[in-house]
Amino acid sequence: MIEMWELVGENDRRYSNFSWRIRMALRHKQLEVQYRPVLLTDKASIGFSGGKTVPVIRDGDTVVRDSWAIAEYLERQYPDRPTLFGGDTGQAVARFANNWVDRTLLAIAFPLLAGDALAVQRGEDHGYFAALIERLTGLTPPALKEHQGRNAERLAKAVDPARATLKRQPFLSGNSPAYADYALFSIYQWARIVSPLDLLADDPAMRDWCDRLLDLNGGFARDTPAFR
Amino acid sequence: MIEMWELVGENDRRYSNFSWRIRMALRHKQLEVQYRPVLLTDKASIGFSGGKTVPVIRDGDTVVRDSWAIAEYLERQYPDRPTLFGGDTGQAVARFANNWVDRTLLAIAFPLLAGDALAVQRGEDHGYFAALIERLTGLTPPALKEHQGRNAERLAKAVDPARATLKRQPFLSGNSPAYADYALFSIYQWARIVSPLDLLADDPAMRDWCDRLLDLNGGFARDTPAFR
Repeated sequence: MIEMWELVGENDRRYSNFSWRIRMALRHKQLEVQYRPVLLTDKASIGFSGGKTVPVIRDGDTVVRDSWAIAEYLERQYPDRPTLFGGDTGQAVARFANNWVDRTLLAIAFPLLAGDALAVQRGEDHGYFAALIERLTGLTPPALKEHQGRNAERLAKAVDPARATLKRQPFLSGNSPAYADYALFSIYQWARIVSPLDLLADDPAMRDWCDRLLDLNGGFARDTPAFR
Repeated sequence: MIEMWELVGENDRRYSNFSWRIRMALRHKQLEVQYRPVLLTDKASIGFSGGKTVPVIRDGDTVVRDSWAIAEYLERQYPDRPTLFGGDTGQAVARFANNWVDRTLLAIAFPLLAGDALAVQRGEDHGYFAALIERLTGLTPPALKEHQGRNAERLAKAVDPARATLKRQPFLSGNSPAYADYALFSIYQWARIVSPLDLLADDPAMRDWCDRLLDLNGGFARDTPAFR
C-alpha cells in the first residue's frame, strides 16, 4: 500500500492543496493509500524524503516528493490504470495548467485564504504559520483580512480561462476529469477546508464543475472535515 | 486547396493573431492553403461565412469560422495528418490554454500593442481601428502608448506559467509543438508584425521557445513582413 504524508490542522483538517492533487490522483489510479498526517513544525518526520514539503509518497522502496513529480511517477508506474494525462501531449499541457494554478491562482489564493487558514492550524503550528504568512505576503493576518474581498474578486477574474472552458465541456480534461482538474480543484478544496467563505456562490459554471469533482469516488473529497 | 481569409495591413502585413494560429495549424497538418487578405472595413468579403471575423476557411464545400472551431475541424477532418492535440484529453486541455491566451494574455496584449498596430493599418482601416481601440480600452492610442511599459511588464508577469513550463520542456505541448504552442505564439507573432517593441529581449526561456516556433517549416513565420 502507498503511504502519503500530508499536512494536518485542527479537527483533522487535511488542508494542503498540493496534497489534495495527489489524493485525487491516487483515487483516479484506484490505488490504496495510507495517509500520514504531519505538522508544519515537524519537518523531521519527512526528512527521509530529502525535502521539507508535502506531499511525499512511499511506494514500496520508492520515495517521491513534489506533487507534480508524484503525478508523473504514478502515471509512469501504473500505466494500466486510468490515465491522469491522456498521453504525452496531454501531460505536457497539463504541466502548463498545473503551473498556472501554482503561479497565477495560488499567488492570489494564498493571501486570500491564509488568514482563515491560520485559524485552523493546530496550536503547535500557529506561530510558524503566522510568520510564514507575513514573510510571503508582507502583511499580518488581520491586515490580509481587510483585502479578502478584493482578493476574492481577483481570483474570480484570474480563473476566467477555466470558467470559459467549463462552459463548453464538463471538465478541463474533457468529458471526464484528470490531473488538470485536480490541480484546479485543489484551490477550491483548500478554500472549503480552511475558510467559511464560499468562493463559488455566484459562479455557477465553476460551482457545478466543483460539485462534479466533490461527487467523485463516493464523495470522498466532500466528506473530509471542512466548512461546507 | 483550402482557402483562408485573414486581415492585411500596410506592406502586406498579415497581422491577425487568430489567423496566425490557423496558419501554423495548417502547416502542422501539411495542408496547402491559398490566403485571401481582407480589410477590417470589408466585412462584406467574408459575409458568406455568417460572421464578421477572421480567420475563415473554405475547404471544398465546408466553411468554418473562429480559430478554435477551425482547429477542431482540421483535427477531425484530417486525422491521419500530424495531430494538433494528441488525443481527447490533450484537446480539452488545449482549449483551456487557448482560452488563457484569449482571456488573460490578449486582454493585456491588446492595450499593449493596439497603438502600434494602428500605425500598420492600411489607410482605409485607420479610422475604424482607432475607434475600435477607444471602444475596447477606453483610451486613445496616444494615451495607451503612455501605459506601454507597464503593460509590457503585466504581460511578462501573466505569461509566467508558460515560462515556467518552457524551462522544463521545449514546447507547451511537450517535445514537439502543437496547438497550445500556436495559440501562445500568436501573441508574440502579432507583436513582431505590428510593433518595434521586442517583448522577449530579456526573457531567454520564452525567446528561445519563440525562436523554435519561428524556425518551423523552413522559417515561414519568420519570413512574413514584420519589424524583426
